[in-house]
Amino acid sequence: MDAAHHTVTLSDLDRFCRQVLAACGANDATADATTRALMHATRCGVDSHGVRLLAHYIKALEGGRLNKTPDIRKVSGFGAVETLDGDHAQGAVPAYAAMTRAIDLAGKFGIGAVGIRNNSHFGAAGAYSVEAARHGLIGLSFCNSDSFVRLHNGASRFHGTNPISMAVPVPGEDPWFLDMATSAVPFNRVLLYRSTGAKLPEGVASNELGINTTDPHLTEMLAPLGDAFGFKGAGLAGIAEIFSAVLTGMRLSFDIPSMMGEDMQTPRQLGAFVMAIQPEAFVDRPTFEAGMKRYVETLRTSPARAGASVMAPGDREWKVARHRDAHGVELDPVTRSAFLELSGTYNVPMPA
Amino acid sequence: MDAAHHTVTLSDLDRFCRQVLAACGANDATADATTRALMHATRCGVDSHGVRLLAHYIKALEGGRLNKTPDIRKVSGFGAVETLDGDHAQGAVPAYAAMTRAIDLAGKFGIGAVGIRNNSHFGAAGAYSVEAARHGLIGLSFCNSDSFVRLHNGASRFHGTNPISMAVPVPGEDPWFLDMATSAVPFNRVLLYRSTGAKLPEGVASNELGINTTDPHLTEMLAPLGDAFGFKGAGLAGIAEIFSAVLTGMRLSFDIPSMMGEDMQTPRQLGAFVMAIQPEAFVDRPTFEAGMKRYVETLRTSPARAGASVMAPGDREWKVARHRDAHGVELDPVTRSAFLELSGTYNVPMPA
Repeated sequence: MDAAHHTVTLSDLDRFCRQVLAACGANDATADATTRALMHATRCGVDSHGVRLLAHYIKALEGGRLNKTPDIRKVSGFGAVETLDGDHAQGAVPAYAAMTRAIDLAGKFGIGAVGIRNNSHFGAAGAYSVEAARHGLIGLSFCNSDSFVRLHNGASRFHGTNPISMAVPVPGEDPWFLDMATSAVPFNRVLLYRSTGAKLPEGVASNELGINTTDPHLTEMLAPLGDAFGFKGAGLAGIAEIFSAVLTGMRLSFDIPSMMGEDMQTPRQLGAFVMAIQPEAFVDRPTFEAGMKRYVETLRTSPARAGASVMAPGDREWKVARHRDAHGVELDPVTRSAFLELSGTYNVPMPA
Repeated sequence: MDAAHHTVTLSDLDRFCRQVLAACGANDATADATTRALMHATRCGVDSHGVRLLAHYIKALEGGRLNKTPDIRKVSGFGAVETLDGDHAQGAVPAYAAMTRAIDLAGKFGIGAVGIRNNSHFGAAGAYSVEAARHGLIGLSFCNSDSFVRLHNGASRFHGTNPISMAVPVPGEDPWFLDMATSAVPFNRVLLYRSTGAKLPEGVASNELGINTTDPHLTEMLAPLGDAFGFKGAGLAGIAEIFSAVLTGMRLSFDIPSMMGEDMQTPRQLGAFVMAIQPEAFVDRPTFEAGMKRYVETLRTSPARAGASVMAPGDREWKVARHRDAHGVELDPVTRSAFLELSGTYNVPMPA
């Protein structure tokens, strides 16, 4: 079969996600937010958090783990701070709502921070940070997730891959954009290496004793970012953990049931945390913009190692996005097969 | 000479710093803040940022790079956000003032963020984060500094070691406390290895072409945290850079004159950024405290690699602090010799 047959346009992929979500009974807010978050990741080339997750979310919505008709409510607020209850929605629903609130609070107070209770899988944290940057603000997003990453010197799964994301507007171009797991690599990479039979890089994965391994089949846990300096990666995971779980009273990573576990009925009670900062609250807009411009331009033109190039955070993602905007994206075989099933079940035409 | 003769009590070290600073003409606020920041680092075992810097600060105060009688002023404010002008003070003066303002703003708005203009060397960023935690709040501190760290794939000094620090109160014990350079190691470590002749760890330092080296004598720049995944460390340095320099309109790392350069007359125009978060703005205090307690206790008792142990961020620092509280600290020969000179110049008795 020709690979070109698996290439679909982003707009039709967006249409497919929305229709399948609606057909399964998700309300409009859920279909919209879930699709936007999935499409953000797919567009930017973060395929681990892209449309391949649609089938998983549908399973969780049908099973009851996720609420098809959530009511996202403000449960408390104090000044520039609010807490939302996510009502066990698909994670993008309260996350976008929280960032919208944070942006509004930042408009009033210069900064806004919003915690989310009763959340679920958040998708790509960057989706919400970028949302703030598109409104001219600095956005930050954090969440925790079920344990996969050992501590520095640890021999058990402790933190989730607990991402830290920040996006900052740059005049006339896409935002400066960081969205990083606080482990060196995502578990998805291990699965990929298992299927290709390749060896993992040094210092990113450990066996069941916490000893580093390059064999993806022996990998029981991920290492925190930093290898020999993994106390830094573990500390950064702690920042995400404290913001997301402790400040919301939600489950710590090691108390969260596995995302891919069999129970699709029980809500997982994750927390999450977003923040927005209005640059003009600190400095006039022209100064802020000139600073960002000089920062990224100097970065991009600074000397690189022989044969390599330097990039600002987000440069790679936005390049993929422009390519996929123009040429569409090729669905991997597993996702395509899941889509065929969803297409049949919900009577929704496949993306073309 | 017996090493015990170089061991001094923390309280007398504190006295010595204050008296030397006062004798050189620094005003009370400067003597107090500078001493507190130096003693925080020395007490916690972060000797690179401890009292060994006193002689450097005195030189900069005498030379005019640092203002002996600064007037720290609020230059703008909007809601939960303020900007202070540091008036070229020793960096701890506006940094403590900024954290005090952030704590006050957090009391009113749940969160407070304060940028600092016309700052100088910040010392250990953790000093200010811990200040918030001692008041029951979450504290964060960021600053940039003169370039020493290459980009991922880069072949020139680009970012400073741009620290990220966070401290979080834990009931009945010292705070959870992270204070990390966004490079793998500080340049200080390279200097130490030069003097001992030891090889550096892999992936932390590079030669003038940006190629990794383990030879401290060939080291021209530091690598960003993460080695093969150094785009993460460089991205984290970017967070500190944007908060500290772009949001304050101050110099980017690559525009900052060297801290150890010969010019002790010209202010360096660094920026910095602190934030405080009131946990009760998000969740009731007992829930927050129970969450932190469970987090650090589970962390400390989780399985470790054979022969190793796991620690929460700060555990090592507070252990050193308790030891030094009881037994004092041994001055290294270079610091002792600098102190002898300061003692003579300013007619201040040596610490005992």
